[in-house]
Amino acid sequence: TLAEAVAAQFATGQLAGRHVVITAGPTREAIDPVRYLSNHSSGKMGYALAEAAVEAGARVTLISGPTGLPTPERVTRIDVTSALEMLEASLAQAPQCDLFIGAAAVADYRPADYQPQKMKKGDEDTLQIALTKNPDIIAAVAQIENRPITIGFAAESEQLLEYARGKRERKGLDAIIANDISREGLGFNSDDNAVTLIDAERELALGPMSKTRLARALIAELSRYTR
Amino acid sequence: TLAEAVAAQFATGQLAGRHVVITAGPTREAIDPVRYLSNHSSGKMGYALAEAAVEAGARVTLISGPTGLPTPERVTRIDVTSALEMLEASLAQAPQCDLFIGAAAVADYRPADYQPQKMKKGDEDTLQIALTKNPDIIAAVAQIENRPITIGFAAESEQLLEYARGKRERKGLDAIIANDISREGLGFNSDDNAVTLIDAERELALGPMSKTRLARALIAELSRYTR
Repeated sequence: TLAEAVAAQFATGQLAGRHVVITAGPTREAIDPVRYLSNHSSGKMGYALAEAAVEAGARVTLISGPTGLPTPERVTRIDVTSALEMLEASLAQAPQCDLFIGAAAVADYRPADYQPQKMKKGDEDTLQIALTKNPDIIAAVAQIENRPITIGFAAESEQLLEYARGKRERKGLDAIIANDISREGLGFNSDDNAVTLIDAERELALGPMSKTRLARALIAELSRYTR
Repeated sequence: TLAEAVAAQFATGQLAGRHVVITAGPTREAIDPVRYLSNHSSGKMGYALAEAAVEAGARVTLISGPTGLPTPERVTRIDVTSALEMLEASLAQAPQCDLFIGAAAVADYRPADYQPQKMKKGDEDTLQIALTKNPDIIAAVAQIENRPITIGFAAESEQLLEYARGKRERKGLDAIIANDISREGLGFNSDDNAVTLIDAERELALGPMSKTRLARALIAELSRYTR
C-alpha cells in the first residue's frame, strides 16, 4: 500500500536486531462475572509505538489489554485482561528484550475479593468496594537482573512534569514519557497527543501531533538508549 | 443487500405505527477523569431488538451506553454514558412511546464522589471506594403516568427464573426477559443467546439461537402486548 511505501521511507534501521516489548491499552479488574473497573485508555499510543518500532527494524512484542484495535503488521501480540496477567506476561518477556516500553494504563487497584456470582443489588443505598493495590509493572521490569532499557509513561491531569520526574526516579526508569491528559482533544482515546520525554539529563517536549508521527519521533529518541 | 431483502421477508408490520424505545449496552460510572466502573455488556441484544422492531414496522429510538456497534438503519440513536444520563433520556422518551424495552446493563452503583483530578496511587495497599445506588431506570419508567408497555431484562448467573419473577413483580413490569449469563458462549459479548420471557400468565423459553433470530422472536411476542 501507499502507506506502507511511505512508512518504508521512514524506516531507518535504528532498532535493527533489537527486540522491543510494549504494553498497551487499559487493564480490566473483575469485580464479579459481569462488572469491572477500568479506564479510558484506547491503546492507540502503544499500538502506534509498536508500528514505529517495526518500521525502525525491531522485532516487536505487544502485550495488550482489551482494545478494539487491529494488531499492527509484523507485531506479535499477547492479549491480557488484568494487571496481574499483564505483569506475568511482562516478566516473561522483559528478560529477552532490549527495550521495554510500558504504555499501558494499568489499573492501580483491583477489587480485593472477586465475587464468582453476580452481586445482587442490595437494599443499601451505599456500598463499599474494597480495593487492593496492583503490582507496579514497569517498576518490576526495571528491577529484574540484566534489565532492558525501561521506559514508563506518566499520565497526569495536574503538575505533570513534577509528578513524572518523581515517578521516573522512584521506579528506576531510564526515561519517562509525560502525558498531560487534561488537555482537550489530546491523549486518551484521541488520535493526537503531546508529551515530554524525561530522562536523567534532559526533557524533550514533542507535539501536539498525530500519535503515528509522535510514535516515530519517540522511537527515534528511545533507540538512542539502546546503542 | 441480500440481508435486507431477507429481512424484508420477515417484516410483518406487527409494530406499524408504534414508537419503540430500547436501552442498550453498559453504562460507565466515572471515578475520576480516567477511571470508571462498567460491565461486560456488548449491547448486541438491544441493538438486535432495535433492528427487529424496525423490521416489524416500528419507529425506534435506541438509548445506548458506550458500545462499538454501528447504529442500525432507520434507528434514532441517543448516546449516553452514565446511568443518570440514561435515566434522563429514558424519562424524556418514555411518555412518547408505546413499548419500552430496558435491555441495557445499567450499573447498579456509581462512585459516591467523582474526583475531578486523576487520583494518585497512594502508599496504602488497600483502598475503599464508596458507591451509591443508581436509580432503577426500568422501574422508574413503569411508574410514569400513561406508561408504555414496559419490558425489563434480568441477567443472572444463578437461580435465574426465581430472581426474574421477583424482579418483574417488584418493578411493576409487563414482562421480563430472563437471561442466564452463566452459560458458556451465550449472553454478554456473545452472538448467541437463550432467554425466558416471563409475564403474569406464562413463561416462554426461547433459544439458544442467534441474537438476530431471538430478537425477531421476542419482538413478535412483545408486539402482542401493544394490541
